[in-house]
Amino acid sequence: MRVRFQQLPAWYSKLSLISRNMSGTVMLPGVGVFGTGSTARVLVPLLKAEGFEVHALWGRSEEEARCLAKEHGIPFHTSRSDDVLLHQDVDLVCIYIPPSMTRQIAVKALGIGKNVVCEKAATAVDSFKMVTAARYYPQLLSIMGNTLRFLPAFVAMRRLLMEGYVGEMQVCDVRVYGPSLLDQSYGWTCEELMGGGGLHTAGSSIIDLLSYLTGTRAHRVHGLLRTFVQQNGLIRGIRRVTSDDFCFFQMLMGGTGSSSGGVCCTVTLNFNMPGSFVHEVMVVGSTGRLVARGTELYGQRNGSKGEELLLSDSGWAGPEVKDMPLPHLRGLSSMVKALRQSFQAHEERRSWARGSVAMAPTFEDGLYVQTVVEAVKRSSCSGEWECVEIMSQEPDPNHNLCEALQRNKN
Amino acid sequence: MRVRFQQLPAWYSKLSLISRNMSGTVMLPGVGVFGTGSTARVLVPLLKAEGFEVHALWGRSEEEARCLAKEHGIPFHTSRSDDVLLHQDVDLVCIYIPPSMTRQIAVKALGIGKNVVCEKAATAVDSFKMVTAARYYPQLLSIMGNTLRFLPAFVAMRRLLMEGYVGEMQVCDVRVYGPSLLDQSYGWTCEELMGGGGLHTAGSSIIDLLSYLTGTRAHRVHGLLRTFVQQNGLIRGIRRVTSDDFCFFQMLMGGTGSSSGGVCCTVTLNFNMPGSFVHEVMVVGSTGRLVARGTELYGQRNGSKGEELLLSDSGWAGPEVKDMPLPHLRGLSSMVKALRQSFQAHEERRSWARGSVAMAPTFEDGLYVQTVVEAVKRSSCSGEWECVEIMSQEPDPNHNLCEALQRNKN
Repeated sequence: MRVRFQQLPAWYSKLSLISRNMSGTVMLPGVGVFGTGSTARVLVPLLKAEGFEVHALWGRSEEEARCLAKEHGIPFHTSRSDDVLLHQDVDLVCIYIPPSMTRQIAVKALGIGKNVVCEKAATAVDSFKMVTAARYYPQLLSIMGNTLRFLPAFVAMRRLLMEGYVGEMQVCDVRVYGPSLLDQSYGWTCEELMGGGGLHTAGSSIIDLLSYLTGTRAHRVHGLLRTFVQQNGLIRGIRRVTSDDFCFFQMLMGGTGSSSGGVCCTVTLNFNMPGSFVHEVMVVGSTGRLVARGTELYGQRNGSKGEELLLSDSGWAGPEVKDMPLPHLRGLSSMVKALRQSFQAHEERRSWARGSVAMAPTFEDGLYVQTVVEAVKRSSCSGEWECVEIMSQEPDPNHNLCEALQRNKN
Repeated sequence: MRVRFQQLPAWYSKLSLISRNMSGTVMLPGVGVFGTGSTARVLVPLLKAEGFEVHALWGRSEEEARCLAKEHGIPFHTSRSDDVLLHQDVDLVCIYIPPSMTRQIAVKALGIGKNVVCEKAATAVDSFKMVTAARYYPQLLSIMGNTLRFLPAFVAMRRLLMEGYVGEMQVCDVRVYGPSLLDQSYGWTCEELMGGGGLHTAGSSIIDLLSYLTGTRAHRVHGLLRTFVQQNGLIRGIRRVTSDDFCFFQMLMGGTGSSSGGVCCTVTLNFNMPGSFVHEVMVVGSTGRLVARGTELYGQRNGSKGEELLLSDSGWAGPEVKDMPLPHLRGLSSMVKALRQSFQAHEERRSWARGSVAMAPTFEDGLYVQTVVEAVKRSSCSGEWECVEIMSQEPDPNHNLCEALQRNKN
């Protein structure tokens, strides 16, 4: 059985029926893009292809911003974030910048009434602050830039899982192998505390994806992180990489019983494998299994002789990006399509319909993912299973001060 | 670069030069086989093909023994173990029976001067007793029936690892997926304490293999076991499967430093996947990687464009066995060849040369494997990393009694 397009969610098939020329006639929000890295580079042409106008671009340096703006004909560029946020033609802000900087921009953007698509933050505290802002402005769109949920293979996979293709889910087994994630020069990708490393970069998307696919969340995790390559030709001397290039974690999801119920997830991330890219997500259940290899979906029911191809990939015709694996590229493209659909549903250019972006990860999902990432890191240090406890209150930054005052009083 | 046969160990290439007809002219030891299961069924024709004469067969029931003996023209069969052990034409005993019974036969066989090839025991205490016997009779051959070490793909893999193909070893990643390991009727395969389950059955061979490939041993392990299928059409009512059908463990091998040095091994065993058989062993190092898929070996050095096929498998021409995966079948076949070579090197039919079986796992290796298996099981209960401590003294069976006496004395 091959999944036909009609079997995907209704909004999904609609997308392909809407001619691209039409988008000119509908008022889409003006976009401001933060970032000049590989994702931002591919995002701009994708947005344009869907009829969005990119009005402003922010780069860390004036030079970086000017280059990319010139390349893609973006009328305004700057290295001052407020100039993009306050730009009168910008209604949607896409934030694809290093994790340690996302929270500040995202919270500010919501505060001045802009819709936000944002990459992950560096810490759970930052994620919590983003959640608080999103809760405060529920009429604004606020979604995480995690894009694997939108990949057609995973959309189909989730639907088949919900329909019982594999029976009761037992095990999810994920492998992501690839070349080093480090930048050419020393930067945040080398620093664990800045949100670098395989777990934070690739693991985050997987953690989010697995909660989307299984419909449950992790309650206990165990993990092991390693930095095998601590120095290389470019990072040497007193500098050392602290972010992980190998990570391996397990999540117990759903049913909290000790031995029965729930799903065991095992994830292996290895970024010491130049020249390869493996992205495999397998779900094994009581009556069959589903495997997404790259952007294609395969399945096998118990009793059948072999695997069947459920969703093939006819090839990628969009912009090529060297550093970006195809599942993320395709996912990003599908997310942009869903965004267009969401804004097209309304006459007013700032309004959006929840329908087509309902499957997108919210900032709450972002906080959950960040909490799991931190629990896995804790587990790697402690060697023990760690509970996933979602923050419900911002930790008091003056905690120590308060204690000191308390002590003085007595 | 494809590995040619000449690059395998010297004894290995010699094997293929010796004509099978020659074996009649050399005095090979007479063999007694214990077991009528799938391994024993394939072992008998393999032994015969190499020129060994199988003189006696033991089965749990007279009926089972008679059937297999008739099928393969074995002159003597019995259900009494002593009748095989004391058989005057039997110089080599091959023990392929359930784990809970191996120790008793192996220790007795050594005690009356027979050479022994034996499947794993059920517990570390049993393994330790086998080690004690093997140490006591060093002139007798005593090797474990674990057969993956002999598989040409792993022989070549080890050689390439030692030659530095992958540079410094970092990660071993192993996956074994297959259909249920349970027998048709309720028996030892259902019982964790009897040596059933994926960890004990398939995990043991992998634990042994990884210590062979890396040249080191595990010092800490972490694991998770699950029994997803506790009852089925044949095992129901008050009966419940206690042996694992999913197991997932990590081993820290070599270098005992906290973050650097040593090899991280991750092993995923899943036996809820009817209709499939995946057997993949990957070693990733600082300058490249090697992957054995089934019986074939692939490699990729960092910087090269793609994977190269290093050792292909031209197909299996030997006896077919439904339940036995090809890597084990081929490994068993290679082990029997090595055994022949070992005994052929001597005139006297009981004598053997260490050369060709030097790579075989000893009983000491068997004790190590059993110790790791038990540590993984402990870890699955405790949720913590467990140390691998090899038994150096047999635990006193009257421990509690002694304590009681001690208390009375005071």
